[in-house]
Amino acid sequence: MVKEGTTVLPYPVTEGQEALPILKNMLNFKRGANFDDLGEENGLTDPAEWVSTFHTLKEKIQHRIESNDKFFSLEFFPPRTKGGAVNLLARLERFREADPLFCDITWHPAGNPGGDTETSSMTIAGASCNYAGLETMLHMTCCSMTKAEITRHLQRAKQLGIRNILALRGDPPSGKDDWVPPEDGFNYATDLVKHIRKEFGNHFVICVAGYPTGHPDALSYEEDLIHLKEKVDAGADFIITQLFFTAETFIKFYEDCRKAGITCPILPGIMPIQSYDSLRHIVKLSKLDVPQDIIDVVSPLKDNDEAIRNYGIHQATTLIKALFDADVAPGIHFYTLNREVSTTAILKQLGLWASKPHRPLPWKMAANHKRTGEDVRPIFWSSRPKAYVYRTQHWDEFPNGRWGSSESPAFGELKDYYLFYLKSTSTKDILLKMWGETLESEQDVFGIFEAYVTGEENKGGIKVTKMPWNDEELSLETSLLKTKLSLYNKRGILTINSQPNVNGANSEDPVVGWGMPGGYVYQKAYLEFFSCKENIEALKNILPLFPRVNYQIVNKRGSENYTNHHRHRPMAVTWGAFPGTEIIQPTVVDPVSFNVWKDEAFALWTEQWGKLYPEGSPSCDIISNLSETYYLVNLVDNNYPEDSCLWDVLEAMFAWRKLQETSQEEVLNDVLQSKEAQELCN
Amino acid sequence: MVKEGTTVLPYPVTEGQEALPILKNMLNFKRGANFDDLGEENGLTDPAEWVSTFHTLKEKIQHRIESNDKFFSLEFFPPRTKGGAVNLLARLERFREADPLFCDITWHPAGNPGGDTETSSMTIAGASCNYAGLETMLHMTCCSMTKAEITRHLQRAKQLGIRNILALRGDPPSGKDDWVPPEDGFNYATDLVKHIRKEFGNHFVICVAGYPTGHPDALSYEEDLIHLKEKVDAGADFIITQLFFTAETFIKFYEDCRKAGITCPILPGIMPIQSYDSLRHIVKLSKLDVPQDIIDVVSPLKDNDEAIRNYGIHQATTLIKALFDADVAPGIHFYTLNREVSTTAILKQLGLWASKPHRPLPWKMAANHKRTGEDVRPIFWSSRPKAYVYRTQHWDEFPNGRWGSSESPAFGELKDYYLFYLKSTSTKDILLKMWGETLESEQDVFGIFEAYVTGEENKGGIKVTKMPWNDEELSLETSLLKTKLSLYNKRGILTINSQPNVNGANSEDPVVGWGMPGGYVYQKAYLEFFSCKENIEALKNILPLFPRVNYQIVNKRGSENYTNHHRHRPMAVTWGAFPGTEIIQPTVVDPVSFNVWKDEAFALWTEQWGKLYPEGSPSCDIISNLSETYYLVNLVDNNYPEDSCLWDVLEAMFAWRKLQETSQEEVLNDVLQSKEAQELCN
Repeated sequence: MVKEGTTVLPYPVTEGQEALPILKNMLNFKRGANFDDLGEENGLTDPAEWVSTFHTLKEKIQHRIESNDKFFSLEFFPPRTKGGAVNLLARLERFREADPLFCDITWHPAGNPGGDTETSSMTIAGASCNYAGLETMLHMTCCSMTKAEITRHLQRAKQLGIRNILALRGDPPSGKDDWVPPEDGFNYATDLVKHIRKEFGNHFVICVAGYPTGHPDALSYEEDLIHLKEKVDAGADFIITQLFFTAETFIKFYEDCRKAGITCPILPGIMPIQSYDSLRHIVKLSKLDVPQDIIDVVSPLKDNDEAIRNYGIHQATTLIKALFDADVAPGIHFYTLNREVSTTAILKQLGLWASKPHRPLPWKMAANHKRTGEDVRPIFWSSRPKAYVYRTQHWDEFPNGRWGSSESPAFGELKDYYLFYLKSTSTKDILLKMWGETLESEQDVFGIFEAYVTGEENKGGIKVTKMPWNDEELSLETSLLKTKLSLYNKRGILTINSQPNVNGANSEDPVVGWGMPGGYVYQKAYLEFFSCKENIEALKNILPLFPRVNYQIVNKRGSENYTNHHRHRPMAVTWGAFPGTEIIQPTVVDPVSFNVWKDEAFALWTEQWGKLYPEGSPSCDIISNLSETYYLVNLVDNNYPEDSCLWDVLEAMFAWRKLQETSQEEVLNDVLQSKEAQELCN
Repeated sequence: MVKEGTTVLPYPVTEGQEALPILKNMLNFKRGANFDDLGEENGLTDPAEWVSTFHTLKEKIQHRIESNDKFFSLEFFPPRTKGGAVNLLARLERFREADPLFCDITWHPAGNPGGDTETSSMTIAGASCNYAGLETMLHMTCCSMTKAEITRHLQRAKQLGIRNILALRGDPPSGKDDWVPPEDGFNYATDLVKHIRKEFGNHFVICVAGYPTGHPDALSYEEDLIHLKEKVDAGADFIITQLFFTAETFIKFYEDCRKAGITCPILPGIMPIQSYDSLRHIVKLSKLDVPQDIIDVVSPLKDNDEAIRNYGIHQATTLIKALFDADVAPGIHFYTLNREVSTTAILKQLGLWASKPHRPLPWKMAANHKRTGEDVRPIFWSSRPKAYVYRTQHWDEFPNGRWGSSESPAFGELKDYYLFYLKSTSTKDILLKMWGETLESEQDVFGIFEAYVTGEENKGGIKVTKMPWNDEELSLETSLLKTKLSLYNKRGILTINSQPNVNGANSEDPVVGWGMPGGYVYQKAYLEFFSCKENIEALKNILPLFPRVNYQIVNKRGSENYTNHHRHRPMAVTWGAFPGTEIIQPTVVDPVSFNVWKDEAFALWTEQWGKLYPEGSPSCDIISNLSETYYLVNLVDNNYPEDSCLWDVLEAMFAWRKLQETSQEEVLNDVLQSKEAQELCN
């Protein structure tokens, strides 16, 4: 007999038996599955855990070490210009797809690092956390700051949702060669670590720097190790190293750390060599020696950036592989120098670039720990998640499990459409080319919408890759509706948001899937568009023909507001059923939020589009007139298991309008011939 | 052009056009559909409203009047014996299926009406509200009670969840002919109404009695109308009349009331004539005159109860139809005299008996206003909803929308399995016949489970219509699994709860449907059973073969407790998607509640079954031993769109067990031939 709690098989295995799948299964089933007491969380992964439990970076690193799942992190410095800030944020968002464990923003003493300008370290770190959705670490140095100033900066970081600090002494202010202790400040990173722990307890995960060849100011490598031990003992959670060039350098350092009693994770910092000049610059700053074999390769290529970059990719990849092979690194920290190409290439070669981006929820989550557990949003902002995060940044609680009554949420005002994290990454010039240098009629506007939806060129031969309501290319999901959408945009149904109906698709479906594997996801067909008064009049007349449709129709001022939605109760339009959990319903439609959204949606016409043209110009007037006279409409088809009837609604609307405008005979013929009409009649 | 807001059709309609369905549709669509401001709640009905909003009886009546939807209510008196109380509660539950608007429990001065005995008015009204799930009204009289006593009774009623009081002066105590004003009490119903309003504000809906032929103690019909007006002016919300025999009587009364300025709803009270004696008794009590034509029919039938009853059904049906035709009655109040047959027949003849019982949720809701909004329960109590209500009666809040963390709910102890509202309506004798006068082996027990599941007779030729874990016949839904269940019960898988998987069935499906029309409902397959240690050992070994299954296995003491459920997170096993709302998930499985339930489930073996036998008898020992050594198991198959694999789990379990017990060769043959195994291997 089998003893309780063991999985010893009671019979010998021979080749013949392996032919029997059921027995084979019995042999092969996971031995790891435990039958432990309640409380042991074995078996199925918990999907809702992903969104509803906050894990510190320290815990995340520990988890990746335990599961031997190599990770990477990315270091950036604050850009000098507003345009640079916009671009950096876009870069962070692209990197997000690769699933970095965290990103790290340097403290830039020259740029008012703790200030509120677009280019400050603080602002960039906050935007990375809240708007790019990345777990973010902010550097903090002891340079030229009093204790009180440091505390204030840390408080601001805390307020922004940042939970990780890289505590450094910092380099002497530029122009000066030697470190000068600041008045009322700290002289060593160790003091800074102690200060953070004293003032903020465990709020922050604290990282410190390690120097594989010793800190340039240290008396010796050995003395530097003692300082590192002090920093860790003072409360640091993990170490990132200064850059280095050979695996041996790090391996020795790693082993010396362990011998010295430093037990925390040590993350090697790798700088891909990207150009001769940047290499020279960095090396000078960090007072490092470049190995002769690297100098031998790089020097002759001095003026061939591409060749050097390719060499750098190869060199870093080889170096990282050696570290992984030696089993000394749980992950890699990249000194990106704010560039993308090399790091991306290395990550892809190493297989660390997440090939299949995982969507825990259908919308992009923010990394701010205050939003932990947020798992429901109105659909309206699905193409403007940053605006949504901005407008809800002051909420104390975020909806979790259900949207709840629509009465409570108070959205912040969105007055400044030029906040850098909401700004288009395209220049005015490019936008004009996409949206029309001059507009002659509303038809021209229709054409831009159509071009965006189809991905084809506009009248001027330019592809329209973004719209005021959507700063990105059309989502894969919307592409499913491309043909239909283009048809109606051409006719003045100016769509700004839509989703197809989905009836129990696999949660791993590459287009509509989200959430944990093994689940099923659902959507109600959704369509949101602007259209003219005549269309709206017709729509109001035919909507009662479609009892399965929920609708809301508003004008710019909100003086007209028609709906059959429940006043305060939201409806789910996206939900999923997963193993072992409650139903998750991350996207809702509700009339109160829609009234908030419509102000933003109407304003985007003029703020983002109309303002491209001189005031009083015909183009400007067309946009302005349209925003004044058009209505914003949302339609939900409740009958998700069947083909969406929303196209039929639009056809019926046009048919009704035609009824008003043409002779009866013509209409009858048209209606008879209309495929949609015939389907409707079946 | 069509003017805004109107639906005038712009063309004349001829016969030819009617042939065009789309135009016909356009002509026929509901003119009533409004395009009003946001606040107007037009269009789709809101399903979640049914459970999440509390409506007073006054509002319900008003709503039925406005929608011209006739209703009925039922009056009962408290029974004299405990057995009578058990039976009355069962009767109330049967009537519940017909969807009465409320039921009404008389104040029985002789029976300690405000006390806590099983037969008190208070207890019966509380059980009706909480355990039968009926909107309940309690009579309250002025007889022989001080103000303080009355207040105390009203407080107790409030505590029990009762929101409706029928305020009466009451009849003189039996034995006395004349009304004697009580000391420190009230002399008139009007005073009682005022007192209730003063002390309890609008907590109670107050009903008063109307006398279509005048109160016997009143000086005149006219003077009685004045008293009625006073009662209404004092704060009564509606009127129920004393019984009467002709439509004219009520119509005159109704019109006189309206003339007198009484504007509240007036509900005619109808007593179906059920026997000669009861008619004579009631008429004597209420000092009414019976019309000669009724006497002429009934007198000769004096000794033929059935004939009188049939006449009574006819007479009442005719009378009610006349009232409905005259448009004077929004509904009917039945003096049932605690009997079922006549009232049921009349309701069916009138079409008032809800033919298709509507299930707002898959389990029976309680009518207690404190439970308004409760829309999630653990599946474990689905066959014992009264025990669940009892054990959660002290909760301040009920789960609404989601079960939430399992950490919080504190279930009340269930020590007394003999509470009358939890008690089986069957006598010990009948139970013994069903569950076996003597048991000789565990196999005998298996046979009882099998007989219950199949609906066939047990060894003794008796049908088993209830089990300790289920006081009703097998639900329609469980019947879907009958064949499989009987197969496994025979083999010692003693099932006590189960549901089939459902993948998007219409919410109006007669078996598995619930919630508002136009929705889709879902279920994960669920199986809960007791089984022996040997089966459990095998089960633990094969469960890892079925990663799509969540399980929990406990023994009586809870010293063994195996699960792969998340520790604190419940999973939905029944949910529905409906037009215009969030997803509703009314049934969950969670490991914490299961641990509470298992104490009850294990105790039911001995409390309900074992105790039928003499202590120490072999039959008693078999049940007792089984409850000590068996395990309780729940299994959920997460993959609801596919056929349930729970039967495969059981087959694999038996196959594994056989592996331990028989030679290898035999097993291989068996396994190869097993259909389940072959399916598993595909």
